[in-house]
Amino acid sequence: MRIDGRKNDQIRPVKVTRNYTKYAEGSVFIEVGDTKVLCNASIEDRVPPFLKGTGEGWITCEYNMLPRSTQVRKPRDIAKLKIDGRTMEIQRLIGRALRSVVDLKAIGEKTIWIDCDVIQADGGTRTTSISGAFIALVDAVNKLHKVQPFKVYPIRNFVTAVSVGIFENEKILDLCYEEDSKAIVDMNVIMTDEGEFVEVQGTGEEKPFSKKDLEELLALAEKGVKQMINLQKESLKMDCLWIGTGGK
Amino acid sequence: MRIDGRKNDQIRPVKVTRNYTKYAEGSVFIEVGDTKVLCNASIEDRVPPFLKGTGEGWITCEYNMLPRSTQVRKPRDIAKLKIDGRTMEIQRLIGRALRSVVDLKAIGEKTIWIDCDVIQADGGTRTTSISGAFIALVDAVNKLHKVQPFKVYPIRNFVTAVSVGIFENEKILDLCYEEDSKAIVDMNVIMTDEGEFVEVQGTGEEKPFSKKDLEELLALAEKGVKQMINLQKESLKMDCLWIGTGGK
Amino acid sequence: MRIDGRKNDQIRPVKVTRNYTKYAEGSVFIEVGDTKVLCNASIEDRVPPFLKGTGEGWITCEYNMLPRSTQVRKPRDIAKLKIDGRTMEIQRLIGRALRSVVDLKAIGEKTIWIDCDVIQADGGTRTTSISGAFIALVDAVNKLHKVQPFKVYPIRNFVTAVSVGIFENEKILDLCYEEDSKAIVDMNVIMTDEGEFVEVQGTGEEKPFSKKDLEELLALAEKGVKQMINLQKESLKMDCLWIGTGGK
Amino acid sequence: MRIDGRKNDQIRPVKVTRNYTKYAEGSVFIEVGDTKVLCNASIEDRVPPFLKGTGEGWITCEYNMLPRSTQVRKPRDIAKLKIDGRTMEIQRLIGRALRSVVDLKAIGEKTIWIDCDVIQADGGTRTTSISGAFIALVDAVNKLHKVQPFKVYPIRNFVTAVSVGIFENEKILDLCYEEDSKAIVDMNVIMTDEGEFVEVQGTGEEKPFSKKDLEELLALAEKGVKQMINLQKESLKMDCLWIGTGGK
Amino acid sequence: MRIDGRKNDQIRPVKVTRNYTKYAEGSVFIEVGDTKVLCNASIEDRVPPFLKGTGEGWITCEYNMLPRSTQVRKPRDIAKLKIDGRTMEIQRLIGRALRSVVDLKAIGEKTIWIDCDVIQADGGTRTTSISGAFIALVDAVNKLHKVQPFKVYPIRNFVTAVSVGIFENEKILDLCYEEDSKAIVDMNVIMTDEGEFVEVQGTGEEKPFSKKDLEELLALAEKGVKQMINLQKESLKMDCLWIGTGGK
Amino acid sequence: MRIDGRKNDQIRPVKVTRNYTKYAEGSVFIEVGDTKVLCNASIEDRVPPFLKGTGEGWITCEYNMLPRSTQVRKPRDIAKLKIDGRTMEIQRLIGRALRSVVDLKAIGEKTIWIDCDVIQADGGTRTTSISGAFIALVDAVNKLHKVQPFKVYPIRNFVTAVSVGIFENEKILDLCYEEDSKAIVDMNVIMTDEGEFVEVQGTGEEKPFSKKDLEELLALAEKGVKQMINLQKESLKMDCLWIGTGGK
Repeated sequence: MRIDGRKNDQIRPVKVTRNYTKYAEGSVFIEVGDTKVLCNASIEDRVPPFLKGTGEGWITCEYNMLPRSTQVRKPRDIAKLKIDGRTMEIQRLIGRALRSVVDLKAIGEKTIWIDCDVIQADGGTRTTSISGAFIALVDAVNKLHKVQPFKVYPIRNFVTAVSVGIFENEKILDLCYEEDSKAIVDMNVIMTDEGEFVEVQGTGEEKPFSKKDLEELLALAEKGVKQMINLQKESLKMDCLWIGTGGK
Repeated sequence: MRIDGRKNDQIRPVKVTRNYTKYAEGSVFIEVGDTKVLCNASIEDRVPPFLKGTGEGWITCEYNMLPRSTQVRKPRDIAKLKIDGRTMEIQRLIGRALRSVVDLKAIGEKTIWIDCDVIQADGGTRTTSISGAFIALVDAVNKLHKVQPFKVYPIRNFVTAVSVGIFENEKILDLCYEEDSKAIVDMNVIMTDEGEFVEVQGTGEEKPFSKKDLEELLALAEKGVKQMINLQKESLKMDCLWIGTGGK
Repeated sequence: MRIDGRKNDQIRPVKVTRNYTKYAEGSVFIEVGDTKVLCNASIEDRVPPFLKGTGEGWITCEYNMLPRSTQVRKPRDIAKLKIDGRTMEIQRLIGRALRSVVDLKAIGEKTIWIDCDVIQADGGTRTTSISGAFIALVDAVNKLHKVQPFKVYPIRNFVTAVSVGIFENEKILDLCYEEDSKAIVDMNVIMTDEGEFVEVQGTGEEKPFSKKDLEELLALAEKGVKQMINLQKESLKMDCLWIGTGGK
Repeated sequence: MRIDGRKNDQIRPVKVTRNYTKYAEGSVFIEVGDTKVLCNASIEDRVPPFLKGTGEGWITCEYNMLPRSTQVRKPRDIAKLKIDGRTMEIQRLIGRALRSVVDLKAIGEKTIWIDCDVIQADGGTRTTSISGAFIALVDAVNKLHKVQPFKVYPIRNFVTAVSVGIFENEKILDLCYEEDSKAIVDMNVIMTDEGEFVEVQGTGEEKPFSKKDLEELLALAEKGVKQMINLQKESLKMDCLWIGTGGK
Repeated sequence: MRIDGRKNDQIRPVKVTRNYTKYAEGSVFIEVGDTKVLCNASIEDRVPPFLKGTGEGWITCEYNMLPRSTQVRKPRDIAKLKIDGRTMEIQRLIGRALRSVVDLKAIGEKTIWIDCDVIQADGGTRTTSISGAFIALVDAVNKLHKVQPFKVYPIRNFVTAVSVGIFENEKILDLCYEEDSKAIVDMNVIMTDEGEFVEVQGTGEEKPFSKKDLEELLALAEKGVKQMINLQKESLKMDCLWIGTGGK
Repeated sequence: MRIDGRKNDQIRPVKVTRNYTKYAEGSVFIEVGDTKVLCNASIEDRVPPFLKGTGEGWITCEYNMLPRSTQVRKPRDIAKLKIDGRTMEIQRLIGRALRSVVDLKAIGEKTIWIDCDVIQADGGTRTTSISGAFIALVDAVNKLHKVQPFKVYPIRNFVTAVSVGIFENEKILDLCYEEDSKAIVDMNVIMTDEGEFVEVQGTGEEKPFSKKDLEELLALAEKGVKQMINLQKESLKMDCLWIGTGGK
């Protein structure tokens, strides 16, 4: 039995609130256990310089933890005049994850900004961000699609993420902060609803890990991803029907 | 009748959620109409260099708007590598307001960090921040006081803030964004529960204003402050009994 | 009797030197007691992005204290790679004050840069800056007007500023540094020559203040503003005749 | 046959020059095909604040590409006043990789700085950096060990890294730039000489990938790691005899 | 005859105002023609880290041009978040020049900050800064010496600087801006009252220059330095008697 | 006899490797004794704003020391978020030196970026950079010239640089680090192959120097420059035949 009573292959309770703020084209407040992230998707009618004139769109992410989302207050990046390395890494990861399931040509020359602001952090903020941001992305894309349908509906697949790890010799799914901080192997797995991998990042800083460990962790992750994709579907209901159809 | 159906001397509906996040010593989510601010108070066991060895404490504030708290996405300060002038002005204002009702000697050599993060902005974010931050401050101070009582309970008064302004020739209380952006005079008034002023900031950028206007606006502000202090008291209930007593 | 022998309602000796430097379109060295500020107005033939194509002009201010304008050397902002919060607040205030008496449409798509560099600081640097910058602004606008008259002369009113405060239970006008640093209430009042307010900023950081205090301080400020506007008129002589006439 | 005539499971020619510069405690110039990286290890007699007084040491990495290491000149980070996100990600990765095979307690309160400066980039700069930095680390640690032997020799394992990917439907090992830029799956694998994983990072930005792909890529990576570890051993010769022995 | 009627070997009129501001330990306003620089010397009771515990003092300089000291307004460094290269170069030059005539051991562990703020620039701002800063330095050192005499009076020599250059085939002394901007060779010479060189910086960006040119320019500079040192002596009067005596 | 056995008027062994990296239009690795600098020249088809539309080109330099090019590791500029003053000074110097022998009109609206990255520093990094960068510049210009000949071949002269100084009462040529750090006079001389000066920078921080010293040092520098220009010619062989001919 785990710290919070869960089984090893069980994710924490998930709560998704759509349309959380009133201005963003997509706005999702996602809670996975005590981890709470506000994921907003904003649409801007221009693209970064490297895409100008290509007809393609872009999806970019900014991730940020509020100073007291953590147990000890964390100074803001602006106070130190530089972005934290971990923050950079995470926002690049979220951007890649979402772009992997979207047809950027179909979007046209627009940028979709994903803002993931962590209100409370209890482990798994990057995976929670991806799972929530995907829903916000769908809402934002649908807002456009309802006004003027895309020739090809741009979202091709669901994408979601979970963490797995080895903690006290057990392989466990969806680590909370206490588990995460003591885990000897920590892995984030991002997958689509077709069971394919978008990204696998496993680290054994404490100690390297074997191929067998890797395989078992991946199997565990797959279980978690399935649970989480079902929750995304439940939350989106009819609003996810276009995904993967090209909009026909 | 105003845009949202209010009378000129009426504040918007207020909702206060205490203990909103689990780590901060004081954590308040305050909603004034569609303006929503998360106010967290954190206690740190040291003071800025200019107070070291004086036995006095400090209260400092950081204010920030989430990128999509506004109608159009506003880039983060860190992306521009500099703090916005308006942000600076507001966080200094909030800090002064709270310090004015606290006995910093009584706190001892501690810093109380107030983080006001605007989740959704619809006018009055600085006044809402002050009103909410005061409650978070009380909760944080009480947390200390319950463990080891202060010799002198450090909070001497309630403090709260409202905006008033002149919009379409009417003097109105608690402006929403649409009113604020077209007001010809805009004033923020910070007062205590004893009806004294902590700060008065009135600006007539569009057009100067007369002494009579100033007096009427101040009278209107007083009405608003009374309503808001009552709401603070309702929210704090028994937890505000020490205020102004010195803790005896 | 005050520290420097003045009466409570008396401003310090004022000396204004126009055309202080040879390149700026308007250049004023203003001394109010021992406070000395160089106010330069520069005209640039373009506007910030948010005004492009609107036909309107802009007035913006940068305020800066030389490192040894103060008793203890103050490191330069560039050495710390960030603008001081107080500096930001003051330069925004000066900008608003000047814009309030100018018809920005009449100026056309130009920016007037106001640089207030404090050479020596003995209290009241922000009010002295406003009073001096106004004269520099008139000189710069007249330089344009003489070459090619504006359809509508853009300056509508005189604007000036004074500080008032409560120090040792006395209400006093135009505080020097020693008074300012110990005042329990500190107020800056910006007014036009028609006796209307442009901005009122009163702070009681030490201790809140009553409505009666506020009224008495405002009355005192009015006296000071009148004295200062007379000095501006004396200094500008014939060069202020266009103000408020629209240039006819 | 690949672009440069290699077989799919073949790494590029590797050349290692130890003691490349004369000041660094460990200095390795490593060439993998046309990718050339200077890896310097420097020892400093203090640790970052979070380790002070713990008796533990630290290994940290800074990675940088010279402006013309790439086909088109890349502006320096300092010219843009911010570190590139990719740079951050890579230097964190290299640091984790090296720390995973070192006993930081055994090092004592010292920091080992690893500087990886890319002189020429033709794909695989991060994996090349890890493979070269490991040799520089061994040289630096041995320099200390020869003067005053560690109680426990701190390096426990060899660590090395290779890239694998899917390019034109082929799974290939050690991608050069041209292959890398068109690969649909890109994976970096960091392993020890005991065949355990330190880090696995696989990304399918273009398109997700299947479990079968993942397994085949991992197998290919293992082949590459073995070749590279043999090269590290050849290069270090007798100087790697202490590794994994604890120094006895 | 030159643009302003001077002979080739004639410096511009010089005016020195000592004790220009009231707080700085040494404060000199120096005017050389239309070039006007405020030179303040401040004493701080600590030294930079590299001198701690050595018993030696330090002299450091910050140079800055006010935005409208030039014909076209020059944005402030802080607005661009980086110090201008030319500014850096000049402040390092001024620091070296002053340190060359001071016995830093005799000063003890103090830092003397020299702030040169250019109020108006008409060529020769760096040489004018050195000449003025030297007088401010003497005043600051004397202020200490009068309170508690140094064992060894730390200033060993006068130091001053002039510019020379080739303009329209003439070799000229002390170039004004118009001459400087068109000169094909530009040289700054810093010398002591004993006729020795502290620094020689000659540049022929437009076109290289011959040895003969160099010699003639140096001879011309010597003439200028003599004139300028006499002016420093006149300005300092009795206050320069300790220089070079060691204070006996 | 000097530390490394050289005579006073002897430069260190020089080794030049052209085409050191494969992407840069000119790429030179130059070694002068133990000082090693990689000098890359890159061509960009645009010019800085101040040259747009003038038809003229530009040459600009960036100089940087790798962190462990020095005896003690030197933190990167980006880690401190500001460029070192010395770095600024040197890169401006190199830029001026190269521009002095190039006809910028003949280049047309292109920028040539010179990157000097110091791999190992043992004194004379700035002079070595100039001598090496000149060769890289010739290679880059020739690459263009061979594809489409310039109307006027833009390089008019060879340019090279050496250091001279006074060390233990001896005047010596081409100082190594140990000599440089203890020299009482330090001078950098940049000259053309016609024996004309481009730049002379002599500093006597420790102690001023006499005219006689200056003359002897310049004579010594001339000797060194001749040796170095011969080495540049040897290295460039036939590729320097266009220099000074205008390309006919």
